[in-house]
Amino acid sequence: MRVGVIGVGCSKFGVRECTLQELAFEAVMEALKDADLSQEEIDLSVVGCVGTRSYELMPAVVVNEYCGFSGKGPLRVEAACATGSAAIYSAFSSIKVGIAEIAIAIGVEKMTEVDTATSAAIGGRAGNYLWEHHFYGTTFPAYYAMHATAHMAKFGTTEKQMALVAVKAHRNAAKNPKAHFQKEISVEEVLGSRVIAHPLKLYDCSPISDGASAAILASEKAVKERGLDAIWIEGVGFSSDTSNMTMRESFVGLRATRLAAEMAYRGAKISEPLKSFDFATVHDCFTIAEIMAYEDLGFCRKGKGGEFVEKGESDFGGKMPVNTFGGLKAKGHPLAATGIAMVYEIVKQLREEAGKLQVDLKHYRALSHNVGGTGHFAWVFIFGR
Amino acid sequence: MRVGVIGVGCSKFGVRECTLQELAFEAVMEALKDADLSQEEIDLSVVGCVGTRSYELMPAVVVNEYCGFSGKGPLRVEAACATGSAAIYSAFSSIKVGIAEIAIAIGVEKMTEVDTATSAAIGGRAGNYLWEHHFYGTTFPAYYAMHATAHMAKFGTTEKQMALVAVKAHRNAAKNPKAHFQKEISVEEVLGSRVIAHPLKLYDCSPISDGASAAILASEKAVKERGLDAIWIEGVGFSSDTSNMTMRESFVGLRATRLAAEMAYRGAKISEPLKSFDFATVHDCFTIAEIMAYEDLGFCRKGKGGEFVEKGESDFGGKMPVNTFGGLKAKGHPLAATGIAMVYEIVKQLREEAGKLQVDLKHYRALSHNVGGTGHFAWVFIFGR
Repeated sequence: MRVGVIGVGCSKFGVRECTLQELAFEAVMEALKDADLSQEEIDLSVVGCVGTRSYELMPAVVVNEYCGFSGKGPLRVEAACATGSAAIYSAFSSIKVGIAEIAIAIGVEKMTEVDTATSAAIGGRAGNYLWEHHFYGTTFPAYYAMHATAHMAKFGTTEKQMALVAVKAHRNAAKNPKAHFQKEISVEEVLGSRVIAHPLKLYDCSPISDGASAAILASEKAVKERGLDAIWIEGVGFSSDTSNMTMRESFVGLRATRLAAEMAYRGAKISEPLKSFDFATVHDCFTIAEIMAYEDLGFCRKGKGGEFVEKGESDFGGKMPVNTFGGLKAKGHPLAATGIAMVYEIVKQLREEAGKLQVDLKHYRALSHNVGGTGHFAWVFIFGR
Repeated sequence: MRVGVIGVGCSKFGVRECTLQELAFEAVMEALKDADLSQEEIDLSVVGCVGTRSYELMPAVVVNEYCGFSGKGPLRVEAACATGSAAIYSAFSSIKVGIAEIAIAIGVEKMTEVDTATSAAIGGRAGNYLWEHHFYGTTFPAYYAMHATAHMAKFGTTEKQMALVAVKAHRNAAKNPKAHFQKEISVEEVLGSRVIAHPLKLYDCSPISDGASAAILASEKAVKERGLDAIWIEGVGFSSDTSNMTMRESFVGLRATRLAAEMAYRGAKISEPLKSFDFATVHDCFTIAEIMAYEDLGFCRKGKGGEFVEKGESDFGGKMPVNTFGGLKAKGHPLAATGIAMVYEIVKQLREEAGKLQVDLKHYRALSHNVGGTGHFAWVFIFGR
């Protein structure tokens, strides 16, 4: 019995003057309207929220209350920046088990409530607490900077190649009214922006954005009974990895991504990603993360990610358009909202409702790739129409 | 395809001088030994942790790392004080879907890291934030005090009847080496203890305990292949309710409990609870909560819960022995650990490994009932051997 996505919603990402629950409401209402459903028709609500930059420590309670799901939301899930995917999984598996016919996954994050210094003191802990974070002060940009320098040293990846990821992201986001940033930038601007953690500069980093997203999933039975047009979940993959960076086998990629992709590809019987997907959404929290994702997901060989973006292969018309809505880098990265915002993008594209950002469809199949921490968690979903 | 529990572990509950991950380790190692498995044989680890009284805001990362599941733990779940049950559900549904054959649910809470005042300022938010919590100062004892006064006014329930719940809990806990409190108390001591929120006194309230618990679940296939003795999950029920107490239909019970029980009973085809279960574990965060649970779970008519405990019906030899290991009230209530500690108790009893606390078995079937907040979340599981 298949499970499909029948409705999606996404709030405007950015610095938002509203509460956590109001943000969620914006996405939920769009998703309900999209699926032509009322709250009463939803059997289960799964709320994804990390919450390290918000004062709301039991977010499912207030979000469900405000969105009209107070009788339908028995749990919250969290997997750092991959929380949205964990929420999709929880809704998916509840339907698959037969416990729900229609379920909503909500991802919401109020990121501008707690300041960065306070948040870093706690949020940085997804790394190895004692040694890396407290003793050496490694925060997320520093972790990804280690990946970037390793990739540069081993494969000759350049700062310009990384900059091209940011330029592409901003160019796409400029056409996406829901994106945090809607201004194009040049390679020179990226290279000239201030250094955050060498070699990553300001424009190599995703922003601190408030945002919410929602996806309504339904059983094949419910889809058919209602005569709906669903986007089917064809593959599910997840993995996790040590949080102790000194124990990682390598810095030039994320093992969790590789293992999650293998699991999803196995389930969906995908052997050649480039010949199977029309486009992909990947976790580009930093520009180097997108380059590593091309490789770890099998879009190009390990070490060739820099070339892949330089040749335009991840742009419209390339071998695998990636992050057509602007990615985490320019659309924004409200932690728990990110994984479900990827599903929003995939559904819009596969339905050919992406307007100026529409990709050409041939396989009617796409992939989402969502990472938590620095590869502590990884989730991959495959969607098909 | 059924799912069964094949191994359980539980740390000593109490004020523990160790970290969150060390606590979890204690429970995990016992569960692995109980199931005769190594970490490598586990496909999935689900970590339940509320975290409002701990500094570890992404607990799954550190817990999985320390317990040897760094490659196996793609998510954390939370449902306030019902978090442990949500973790059981997540492991259960992952096996049921076929994504895992063997999964571990870990519930862990470090409660003595953040002081009560700080925690109340944030943790109390599972109530309606603006009106109840900030304006009127309602904390958890105050919420349950409202339930108690309503129950007394409507049904004549007495403070002595509530005290009897505490006396029973302490009597059982005194024989449980893992319990936080191991000292019997008298009705007079309960009635004479200081008032926390009238009519609830100190001994009507569960303590602030550190603790962890773990349960290993397996598919029927894995159970048979290994020739194991499993305790089967025969019913699953959940519900949630408004966090705005002014919108609740009544204060003399918890609607979420009733709905969760209905769902679980329907799934397991239970029509007469008293004739179906040998014993039950219920969510006695306050003595009045246990009395309401007798009624909401169908062990007696609404309003008769006080009488039920007074006549010894919830004690050994009664119609439905409840909380034979001491309950939240005396064994302790480390939020996320509680729901899985109930499974620990059920497995030990159904295997007839409960020693001095063993109940007589006839149906070889029992129930766990776990509440989040003041009935914001409720989970009911039915287990059978």
